[in-house]
Amino acid sequence: MDSGDFRRFGYELVDWIADYLDHAERYPVLSRSSPGQTKEGLPAEPPMQGERMEDILADFREIIVPGITHWQHPRFFAYFPATTSGPSILGELLSAGLGVNAMLWQTSPAATELEEVVMDWLRSLLGLPEAFRGVIQDTASTATLCALICARERATDFRISERGIPGWAGEPALRLYTSTEGHSSVEKGARIAGFGSEHVVTVRTDEDNAMNPENLRRCIEEDRSNGLHPCCVVATVGTTSSTAIDPLGPIGVIAENYGLWLHVDAALAGSAAILPEKRWILDGVEKADSFVFNPHKWLFTNFDCSAFYCRHPDILTSALSIQPEYLKTGQDCRVVNFRDWGIQLGRRFRSLKLWFVLRYYGVEGLQERLREHIGLAAGFASWIERSADFELMAPVPLNTVCFRYRPVGATLPEEELEAMNRELMDDVNRSGRIYITHTRLRGTFCLRLSIGQMRTDLDDVKMAWEVLQQSDVVETRRRER
Amino acid sequence: MDSGDFRRFGYELVDWIADYLDHAERYPVLSRSSPGQTKEGLPAEPPMQGERMEDILADFREIIVPGITHWQHPRFFAYFPATTSGPSILGELLSAGLGVNAMLWQTSPAATELEEVVMDWLRSLLGLPEAFRGVIQDTASTATLCALICARERATDFRISERGIPGWAGEPALRLYTSTEGHSSVEKGARIAGFGSEHVVTVRTDEDNAMNPENLRRCIEEDRSNGLHPCCVVATVGTTSSTAIDPLGPIGVIAENYGLWLHVDAALAGSAAILPEKRWILDGVEKADSFVFNPHKWLFTNFDCSAFYCRHPDILTSALSIQPEYLKTGQDCRVVNFRDWGIQLGRRFRSLKLWFVLRYYGVEGLQERLREHIGLAAGFASWIERSADFELMAPVPLNTVCFRYRPVGATLPEEELEAMNRELMDDVNRSGRIYITHTRLRGTFCLRLSIGQMRTDLDDVKMAWEVLQQSDVVETRRRER
Repeated sequence: MDSGDFRRFGYELVDWIADYLDHAERYPVLSRSSPGQTKEGLPAEPPMQGERMEDILADFREIIVPGITHWQHPRFFAYFPATTSGPSILGELLSAGLGVNAMLWQTSPAATELEEVVMDWLRSLLGLPEAFRGVIQDTASTATLCALICARERATDFRISERGIPGWAGEPALRLYTSTEGHSSVEKGARIAGFGSEHVVTVRTDEDNAMNPENLRRCIEEDRSNGLHPCCVVATVGTTSSTAIDPLGPIGVIAENYGLWLHVDAALAGSAAILPEKRWILDGVEKADSFVFNPHKWLFTNFDCSAFYCRHPDILTSALSIQPEYLKTGQDCRVVNFRDWGIQLGRRFRSLKLWFVLRYYGVEGLQERLREHIGLAAGFASWIERSADFELMAPVPLNTVCFRYRPVGATLPEEELEAMNRELMDDVNRSGRIYITHTRLRGTFCLRLSIGQMRTDLDDVKMAWEVLQQSDVVETRRRER
Repeated sequence: MDSGDFRRFGYELVDWIADYLDHAERYPVLSRSSPGQTKEGLPAEPPMQGERMEDILADFREIIVPGITHWQHPRFFAYFPATTSGPSILGELLSAGLGVNAMLWQTSPAATELEEVVMDWLRSLLGLPEAFRGVIQDTASTATLCALICARERATDFRISERGIPGWAGEPALRLYTSTEGHSSVEKGARIAGFGSEHVVTVRTDEDNAMNPENLRRCIEEDRSNGLHPCCVVATVGTTSSTAIDPLGPIGVIAENYGLWLHVDAALAGSAAILPEKRWILDGVEKADSFVFNPHKWLFTNFDCSAFYCRHPDILTSALSIQPEYLKTGQDCRVVNFRDWGIQLGRRFRSLKLWFVLRYYGVEGLQERLREHIGLAAGFASWIERSADFELMAPVPLNTVCFRYRPVGATLPEEELEAMNRELMDDVNRSGRIYITHTRLRGTFCLRLSIGQMRTDLDDVKMAWEVLQQSDVVETRRRER
């Protein structure tokens, strides 16, 4: 593609994205595509001759766009929103144009050093310990896996990475603790790293869905008395279901007393710690060994960009560093080579977009937007609380509201309430006007509404409330009364 | 950022990238930045107030660009080039603008289905077995880790993912085979997945640096007679040092006879299999259990984009699937949810850029460029062969030439030759005109020149040859004669 065509189609796509972000609400949030529909529009074999970019972009609009679920829609309230922003998209574009691989310092010194700088900026913004060293990973899943590997290796004096399973055979099973609300990536990491699903101990939570430290202590004691080896605790700051905040202070004391690695999974909520009034969510992080949060979730940086911090980079690199001749450089003893800090060898230049975002908005600009989201969530929660037909299912410390429909005056069995709420969710999602998802808290089916889109405003949240109240499920019940 | 500013700075960056790709040769290939130099230009704290995009972009040009090693420079001959292309950059831009997460079918049906389609296209292009199912991963390191986990789980009847190390305690050690030229990611994966470094058996290669199947058989037999458990073999098609091709046919027969999982790491070379005259490199792939190659290396798709195929997706998903309530959808039994096919939960919409590239160039367009690179490498190799002062150090089946300087008429000890070649490499890299790297083959230090940049032409390769011959190291020797 010559530079003339690149410019032409580049401008066209910049325009398309600008329009898209200005008017994402023209689309149904959740794609209405049915299974197989996109595939049907595409040929079974690639073209032998090259095609015109005009035709490819026309197919994009006609075949692909109808199959898109619009994560940038202001009424995307599902999962955790993963919002992008203008400066972040521009940073990603520039990174794609440079096409550098940040695996070694030498393969682009600025990519490594800018990553060190922006990770230090974030450490400072969140008030993380000075001793933490940061690296950008793709996702919190990968970062948590790295933390579990560190925990495993420290506990076994590197016998597993070096000697494998036989190096630990006959020794007590390594045990891993997280709350019943911990993220699925903890168990996934435990499977990959050889802890095994059955050695992931799920610690019971309190009424607020946060880990009860006393329960953690009891689980550890019980394991010790059964001859098992407590190894690692993953505390969650902002659980996926309800953004519950595990109390890091008492958990850290227990981890320290029993010699456990403390990893903090703050994937969504970490961003909120840039607000002085929310910094309490990280109280006690001083005792953590590692920490992860995702600027790609709630810091306006497009996916993927996960910030991983480790107090002991020597353990991380001892576990993961392999030194083949073809990767050695003359500067190895003087610089950081981030390839040794994660699973992958190759690494994108992700710090560029994060640098653009942090500078373009500035700390105060970011704080303002987070405050707005938290305020909107509080407002929505208050409407739920005041409504006779809906109930709040969990505290709302941040941007996510768990609730359900329970029509006033009717005493319905749980199964019926669940079926009714599922129907309500499917109904409002089919409307295309909002997209919400569900979870289960202490066994009870709940709806979830999470606010984190850069473009979400009060009108959007009001509309969500209207759409819920006007859904057939609710209207029918109301008419029956 | 309002859409006016987004357009304005978007156009500006499109222009910057267009100019950059047209004239990347204006820059020294290898950055001349010294350790700490980029950091010095950046403040220790993020700005409190937002900054103007003009200022951010000015800093990009003044502080970041001097610290870039130019992977898109036509004379980047280091490692394996990871070339990007116009359509790929545009695809990445669009993907960043949409900002969708392809973790579940529902979270963007088109992202999942387009991924299935383009992976089927590539399977067909490479002549891979019909039974292979494909998924895009970030890197071959991650894909190989997935393969190792599958091998481990099949061999242990899922006892490690479920019961962890104690589930396999007392059982024979799982053994993993790759050649002495296998990639570092194999050992890294073995450390992560708990095989342990010492159970990675490095099988001796032949003169051509490819695995000797008879040596593999002997290693397996020896392990069996020592009560160990042969589990997996990773064959390399296109080794990192010299693109040697392990013979998949005989290796596959051995893997089948001994019940080993056969994973094929064709990270660089896989792309060459789209050429009928090079398809022989995959002869025997019919017996493979899994396969990976990187369109981000030699198929003009910008990093990251790694194509992973598995014959047994049920094993992959059994090992990696965790089903928390908040990720369940109504379509789960009818669709593919790629989150269960890899390490990460979140996934970028990577199929878009790959689709753009495959359609824009067409199969013939891609073939033409690969043929040109292979021809250029053959040409460079012939100049080396005809030179009295340089020698070829390995066969050149594809795009990579291993060679060294050995001045005619002098009988120098190996250490001196190595020092001289290191000096030569540093000297030509300092020139900024080319960038080459080194490796070691059977203990001997070699220089490597790898050709895979979209914009590299005969003049660039000629210049590489001139720069080498005109370096101080060579000139000084020549004058002394």
